[in-house]
Amino acid sequence: MRVFIPGIDGYLGWSLAQHLAARGHEIAGADMFLRRKWVEEMGSWSAIPISPFPERLDAFQERFGRRLTFWEGDLRDYNFVEEIFQDFEPEAIVHLGECPSAPYSMVDRDHAVFVQTSNIVTTFNLLFAIRDVTPDAHLLKLGTMGEYGTPNVDIPEGFFEVEYNGRSDRLPFPRQAGSWYHWSKVHGSNNVMFACKIWGLRATDVMQGVVFGTRIDGQPDDERLRTRLDFDQAFGTAINRFCCEAVVGHPLTPFGKGRQKRGFLPLRDSMQCLRLALENPPRAGEYRVFNQFDEVYDITELALKVQLVAGGRGLAVEVRHLENPRKELEEHHYNPEHQHLRDLGYTPAHDVEGEIRLMLEDLLQHRDRIEAKIDVLIPDVRWDGTRGKVDFLADDLDRKLREVAGGRAAPTPTGL
Amino acid sequence: MRVFIPGIDGYLGWSLAQHLAARGHEIAGADMFLRRKWVEEMGSWSAIPISPFPERLDAFQERFGRRLTFWEGDLRDYNFVEEIFQDFEPEAIVHLGECPSAPYSMVDRDHAVFVQTSNIVTTFNLLFAIRDVTPDAHLLKLGTMGEYGTPNVDIPEGFFEVEYNGRSDRLPFPRQAGSWYHWSKVHGSNNVMFACKIWGLRATDVMQGVVFGTRIDGQPDDERLRTRLDFDQAFGTAINRFCCEAVVGHPLTPFGKGRQKRGFLPLRDSMQCLRLALENPPRAGEYRVFNQFDEVYDITELALKVQLVAGGRGLAVEVRHLENPRKELEEHHYNPEHQHLRDLGYTPAHDVEGEIRLMLEDLLQHRDRIEAKIDVLIPDVRWDGTRGKVDFLADDLDRKLREVAGGRAAPTPTGL
Repeated sequence: MRVFIPGIDGYLGWSLAQHLAARGHEIAGADMFLRRKWVEEMGSWSAIPISPFPERLDAFQERFGRRLTFWEGDLRDYNFVEEIFQDFEPEAIVHLGECPSAPYSMVDRDHAVFVQTSNIVTTFNLLFAIRDVTPDAHLLKLGTMGEYGTPNVDIPEGFFEVEYNGRSDRLPFPRQAGSWYHWSKVHGSNNVMFACKIWGLRATDVMQGVVFGTRIDGQPDDERLRTRLDFDQAFGTAINRFCCEAVVGHPLTPFGKGRQKRGFLPLRDSMQCLRLALENPPRAGEYRVFNQFDEVYDITELALKVQLVAGGRGLAVEVRHLENPRKELEEHHYNPEHQHLRDLGYTPAHDVEGEIRLMLEDLLQHRDRIEAKIDVLIPDVRWDGTRGKVDFLADDLDRKLREVAGGRAAPTPTGL
Repeated sequence: MRVFIPGIDGYLGWSLAQHLAARGHEIAGADMFLRRKWVEEMGSWSAIPISPFPERLDAFQERFGRRLTFWEGDLRDYNFVEEIFQDFEPEAIVHLGECPSAPYSMVDRDHAVFVQTSNIVTTFNLLFAIRDVTPDAHLLKLGTMGEYGTPNVDIPEGFFEVEYNGRSDRLPFPRQAGSWYHWSKVHGSNNVMFACKIWGLRATDVMQGVVFGTRIDGQPDDERLRTRLDFDQAFGTAINRFCCEAVVGHPLTPFGKGRQKRGFLPLRDSMQCLRLALENPPRAGEYRVFNQFDEVYDITELALKVQLVAGGRGLAVEVRHLENPRKELEEHHYNPEHQHLRDLGYTPAHDVEGEIRLMLEDLLQHRDRIEAKIDVLIPDVRWDGTRGKVDFLADDLDRKLREVAGGRAAPTPTGL
């Protein structure tokens, strides 16, 4: 299958290109390397060093014996996108060409506008290019479980049966996103749903959980093939950040009470899920939603897991809660359905500790890179619009939380 | 109260400025006259001639004995917006500075992107200016009943009690908009709701029905004070278009089966509702939704009403159905709740025929202006992405529809 990956230079994009090429798919991509610049703007860099893109291309060719077709340019420019579609005639598009960071979108007015308008325009350009050039192509749009927020009811996969005043209908499940970024994903989901309805396009909208991990299956030991791993407040996700903290002896830092629950899945599972969605496309006119994660954990539970695995590797670290820079429920119901991908054959690895162990090994090779940017581990982008590093919460709260967590945690060293 | 009206030169804006000034409120506005340019781009002009804005300002001063503070500029430019807020320190903002047309947004990719990004950015700029300059100010955001679409259940005012898998929550009612424009309003509603949540802003989101009419209460006979009245496919709304068609003897043109139901209200009622919302602001942090319309009618029913009133005035016109350029349900359940504004004291005029009679009188003065642009009465912007004038539907369908409508219609002349 000819698969076009906008945003191919990113964390998921570079992994997916290899995962799909290994399955025999023909890959093309586009990027303008904004992810590298955004992380730099946040004062950070990837913990795992990443090669300049031309070197990535060479490594791809060496490994798979064929070129990856690549265009450097701005996906907000419709002419650029249309020419790619005319050249490559993709059968599927995996849209990874959006800015994926909640804190980045909350920095200030300019960042909010940038994230929402860029994400809307790139999605529009793909929708119009599909309509006008390759109308049978399957759009796989990356969304996020964060589009749903944390309602006090179970979360279905996109749609649900509504009963109201004695009548019923199948309607989109209400979204309650938690940042300008998350809302940009809701806006995009709505636009894609509408394009399927009026133009008969086919799309899969993946409400992805939080992805963690440094590896995908079958990746040879070539540094140029490794994907990035971020640990700054904006582009680092929970487990990835905790692992980076562990290798430099920094406390693991859940926000607030740390009882926020989220769906998580390892990078290798994410690749499996995206491939399954691609290889089982929806019918023309169908807009389907997949909730993509393996299991739900609360954030403190995950911090304790990282602490435990790190302890076993001789890395003693505390779990210390930070003042929450976000505005979110810190204790809530959370039970999202996620059957659709299982029905397509998704077989989760289920081995969070194993994945964490691998990550720590990989990251220990680059401890100096994390130490060089250790300041970025404490967030300063606050949802109330102010900017300033958050503080650690009082120790007694920490102690209480450890008690709540029961005996699962390794003994926690006192003092930083 | 100091009220700032972005988009003060438009159909609602120019009316609202006068309605509120007559109630003693202090009015400021901003505009860059895009509405005038958009209508020109659609090959049309206002049926009722409108004065250049400096003349409007003079007339305002003559009538109310004080200046209307006005800034010409682009609301997408944050510095422009912030300076207005610092100068005027508004206590309320009525956001009419958005592109309000479904067909305009469906013209092509550039128009879709323009409408969505402009509407998102102007709303963002107002939200940030409120947060940073006048955090207690009340944002009254104009939305549209079209945000809800036509679900097979009743439509509540913004939120509803959800039961799902044995648990319950109060959640935003699912939106199913019908054009890129309508979705831009959903995106904006979502952004405003979130700003109230994280920053404690206060906002009223008005899901407005279709407004019709040429007059507001108490307006003196000064041409410079008259508001615009559009009849082109993009900026003309249903009853307004039917009345313009009637005065030039053009068939009245419902789309498709013409059984689409919508909430309608006269311009004078719209003014009353907006004023009530302003004079009864929400509390800090509250995001409330008002469904604003008087009664639900189906489109053919309204065409027949216009036909009847026009017939009484000696204007014999047919009702002839056009091929529907939109993708929408032509027969559907429609029962939106609309109690909130009544609870604040909204007393509807309830006199659709009287309003139509007045409109016909006003428009007959400018029959030549409509005749000069008669081509714009038949739409050519199609939801499937093609462009081309739609055809009249076969007469037998028309006959059937007239039978269905029962005896309410005046005898219809045969032949065009």
